[in-house]
Amino acid sequence: MRIYGDSISGNCLKVKWTADYLGLTYDWIETSVLTGETRTPEFLAMNPAGQVPAVILADGRPLAQSNAIILHLAEGSDLIPTDAYDRARMLEWMFWEQYSHEPYVAVARFQVRYRGIDPKDLDPGMVERSYGALAHLERALVGTDYLVGNRLSLADICLVAYSRFAPEGGFDLQRFPALTAWIARLEVALDIR
Amino acid sequence: MRIYGDSISGNCLKVKWTADYLGLTYDWIETSVLTGETRTPEFLAMNPAGQVPAVILADGRPLAQSNAIILHLAEGSDLIPTDAYDRARMLEWMFWEQYSHEPYVAVARFQVRYRGIDPKDLDPGMVERSYGALAHLERALVGTDYLVGNRLSLADICLVAYSRFAPEGGFDLQRFPALTAWIARLEVALDIR
Repeated sequence: MRIYGDSISGNCLKVKWTADYLGLTYDWIETSVLTGETRTPEFLAMNPAGQVPAVILADGRPLAQSNAIILHLAEGSDLIPTDAYDRARMLEWMFWEQYSHEPYVAVARFQVRYRGIDPKDLDPGMVERSYGALAHLERALVGTDYLVGNRLSLADICLVAYSRFAPEGGFDLQRFPALTAWIARLEVALDIR
Repeated sequence: MRIYGDSISGNCLKVKWTADYLGLTYDWIETSVLTGETRTPEFLAMNPAGQVPAVILADGRPLAQSNAIILHLAEGSDLIPTDAYDRARMLEWMFWEQYSHEPYVAVARFQVRYRGIDPKDLDPGMVERSYGALAHLERALVGTDYLVGNRLSLADICLVAYSRFAPEGGFDLQRFPALTAWIARLEVALDIR
């Protein structure tokens, strides 16, 4: 398997962490989102959306979208709950991440860390929605070690990626003790300290 | 099962269409996004995100996020491919929908249809990304009847919802003959003419 990814991207790190946790063998092709490497004709032929992560599976077939990739890689593993309702809740978190967390927390962090924007100059609506997403996670994590069924699942891997980078966007995680403890817990579980 | 949904919302209609296709029994609780019905204390107690669709399953447990709901309802049915790669591609489309289609096509349509904004006054970036998403679908649908494996799946149900409403946002679907034919095909398959 080949994974095309940028190591600065939480979406790409989800795929790396899942593959590493599962002990899968792969080649990591570092592909910069900053220098246009996802817009070359060769890359677009593989993934017309021009996004990383993108994967070429062992049989040569392509797959895109970070959450679809990790669901595919982890199928049948302990990262996906066997209980149907827990599995549905995991998916609920994963779709929520792409709609209500990543577009705010990740975009703000990108603008601050890689575009040199002062956190004070971020779009206030983006900051408010980012904090709203982080507060939603905090509430869900009070009294539990993981997001679903009190055990590690793809919901945690998916949501920790950009939550962990939030301070790079100027967000104060000290307000969220359960979230902070969960991030530390996942750094151990995924061996990503 | 109770489905809390607003009939003007494509995200809610996905759930209705999936349940109807599968012949499931449910109570539809019409819940308006325009009049604050998703922000009452009672609703927020059920779905803290304050969004529809939200479902109370037959056993009383809640579930949110349109795509997570339809994946749960359709588990084991012919709306989910049995082939692992086809299933992964279906999920790829479903995550793409929430990140790269709905935030543009659906939001533009909402502003035009329910906020009275003239299509000419929409954010040009939103219009460009909407047309980009529709063009991406058009390319994928040339030479095939459905998005994945040439048979109906949740990818189609998920993406037809707001694609079908695109003209209400001022988008010209005549540019996209394969997309237009696919919408007509799904109206028959889902009996939603």
